[in-house]
Amino acid sequence: MEKNRLEMRLQCPMPNLDFDRITLGHGSGGLLTNKLLDSMVFELFDNSLLQTRHDGALLQLEGRVAFSTDSYVVSPIFFPGGSIGDLAINGTINDLAMCGAKPQYLSLSLIIEEGFSISELWDVLLSIKFACEKAGVVIVTGDTKVVEKGKGDKIFINTSGIGSVHPKANLSADRIIAGDKIIVSGNLANHGMAIYSIREGLEFESNILSDTRELSRQVLSLIDAFGDNIKLCRDPSRGGVATSLNEIARSTHLGINLWQDKLPMESQVLEACEMLGLDPLYVANEGIFLTIVADQKAEEMLTQLKSLPHCETAEIIGEFVQDHPTQVLLNSAIGGRRVINMLIGEQLPRIC
Amino acid sequence: MEKNRLEMRLQCPMPNLDFDRITLGHGSGGLLTNKLLDSMVFELFDNSLLQTRHDGALLQLEGRVAFSTDSYVVSPIFFPGGSIGDLAINGTINDLAMCGAKPQYLSLSLIIEEGFSISELWDVLLSIKFACEKAGVVIVTGDTKVVEKGKGDKIFINTSGIGSVHPKANLSADRIIAGDKIIVSGNLANHGMAIYSIREGLEFESNILSDTRELSRQVLSLIDAFGDNIKLCRDPSRGGVATSLNEIARSTHLGINLWQDKLPMESQVLEACEMLGLDPLYVANEGIFLTIVADQKAEEMLTQLKSLPHCETAEIIGEFVQDHPTQVLLNSAIGGRRVINMLIGEQLPRIC
Repeated sequence: MEKNRLEMRLQCPMPNLDFDRITLGHGSGGLLTNKLLDSMVFELFDNSLLQTRHDGALLQLEGRVAFSTDSYVVSPIFFPGGSIGDLAINGTINDLAMCGAKPQYLSLSLIIEEGFSISELWDVLLSIKFACEKAGVVIVTGDTKVVEKGKGDKIFINTSGIGSVHPKANLSADRIIAGDKIIVSGNLANHGMAIYSIREGLEFESNILSDTRELSRQVLSLIDAFGDNIKLCRDPSRGGVATSLNEIARSTHLGINLWQDKLPMESQVLEACEMLGLDPLYVANEGIFLTIVADQKAEEMLTQLKSLPHCETAEIIGEFVQDHPTQVLLNSAIGGRRVINMLIGEQLPRIC
Repeated sequence: MEKNRLEMRLQCPMPNLDFDRITLGHGSGGLLTNKLLDSMVFELFDNSLLQTRHDGALLQLEGRVAFSTDSYVVSPIFFPGGSIGDLAINGTINDLAMCGAKPQYLSLSLIIEEGFSISELWDVLLSIKFACEKAGVVIVTGDTKVVEKGKGDKIFINTSGIGSVHPKANLSADRIIAGDKIIVSGNLANHGMAIYSIREGLEFESNILSDTRELSRQVLSLIDAFGDNIKLCRDPSRGGVATSLNEIARSTHLGINLWQDKLPMESQVLEACEMLGLDPLYVANEGIFLTIVADQKAEEMLTQLKSLPHCETAEIIGEFVQDHPTQVLLNSAIGGRRVINMLIGEQLPRIC
């Protein structure tokens, strides 16, 4: 779980400003934009690359590099366990990690709705700052736009990221063969159910927290230890585990057998899903990853993964098979089988 | 001027789809998202890096690299001379060029409002495709989000870009000294006045076109010829030439003298500015750049610049001086002088 808003505020009190709401002028590119950036953004994200305040940042890079982008539109922007700021950093970091890369440099681009509270903006920026520090990445370039009230929704954030690829990483769906195992690093469905509970005003008796966190160290330590026995990594965010596995199955032309009794879940999340009639396989995750691994190394990798932070409940949840190519079948504990398709329609809009 | 919508449509007819509006499901990450991407995005932006459909792209980079990001929220999304798609590509390319870099790889992230027309989306994507081809850049990774009707405005686009820095580029405000000259590559205020005219429903008798275009070849050919005699490059977008020069003056602690009679402008743009009481120094540009150059090379560089496409009206518009540090003074033809501050407030919201 990330730092909460109070903890962050105690560490970084909000500066005294002569405005408490975002105005269109803050997006003008002129004096007000500069004031906003000076007093908030440059104050928090001080580093030599950003301080040049140029149109872009100059980096020194060598070799294989991963490049990724995501826009974040989650609603509400603060939710149990995190905020849009945490998501925007952790999500893009995880995309880089899924490429086998060590995340290094991020861009930060804000689209803010006129009238958005400066106090909430400060909290979002603080969550970005602390998420960056935790992951050891720096924000090196950025942009701020403002749209009229009613033409946006508080704040949308784009982050793009660059990271150097681990020399042992050899991740490609083409390398997956029948027999390869699917490992999930932790519990399913926490992020989606945390958003759902607060958005619908449902107060579950239990307190479900988003699993937003960065996973790059865990992924890279596996790649370091197991090299090209790791065939692919994916973070099952929007669309959940079901959609990610369908995408992989499609690109391999193999089938997937999933074992229902192996899917790790918190009991309160499982109960909430059942109560609301949601299939956890389709609910979004922000703090777990899927690894496809060569059969003979699967158990060893699982043992190592379980020793890593936030991966204690990792499991081997399925395998690739020659049968039913491109289809994902869920095998229940009592012997039933059903086809798990990609998410159709929209389960929970604006989940990330 | 970019290709118009009809020309693009003739070259790339819209595919037959079973939906004509964007729904929330298109942002689910599931089946509908995949259908949208397959039939439109991957159809248009076919390249080996994008086709892996991974969370990010793997690039091979060496040495000094520029990294830049911008979100585009311009309204209306189609305007005389271009569209939000052209802007999103040309703008980020120009940011890289201002770092002295050859633009190579772009990310493309869309935030689409529910109900947005597929036909308009196709036209935006076409303008992106043709702008990329013209500039020789490729889109290698991307993201698509959908927000509810009334929580966005048709489409917002983020592009981030990566480019390798020219070995002769040595761009830094620290290197600017008194006597250095300021060259502008072309006419001021076209983009802002094109947007303004259409947004306000004003039909000027003349037809003002946005100057959206990429300028990387021009910038790089100057750097190649004049090396570190070029101290800085900037594109005076939001906030106009006045704001860019104020930012530069601030970071040099020198003053700037601008010569009003040297400012190149189309007569119809000047007339429109006068009619509407807008100062062209504050109006946004998307197809010109400012270069700060060593005094002894200024005339030679101007001659070369004028020989390059879209730079025929380039001029030396001012110089850095020891006097009035951090202030920009405009010297009129009849001997008047006035201070040109950074843009205060918002002149034309959502200009880019």
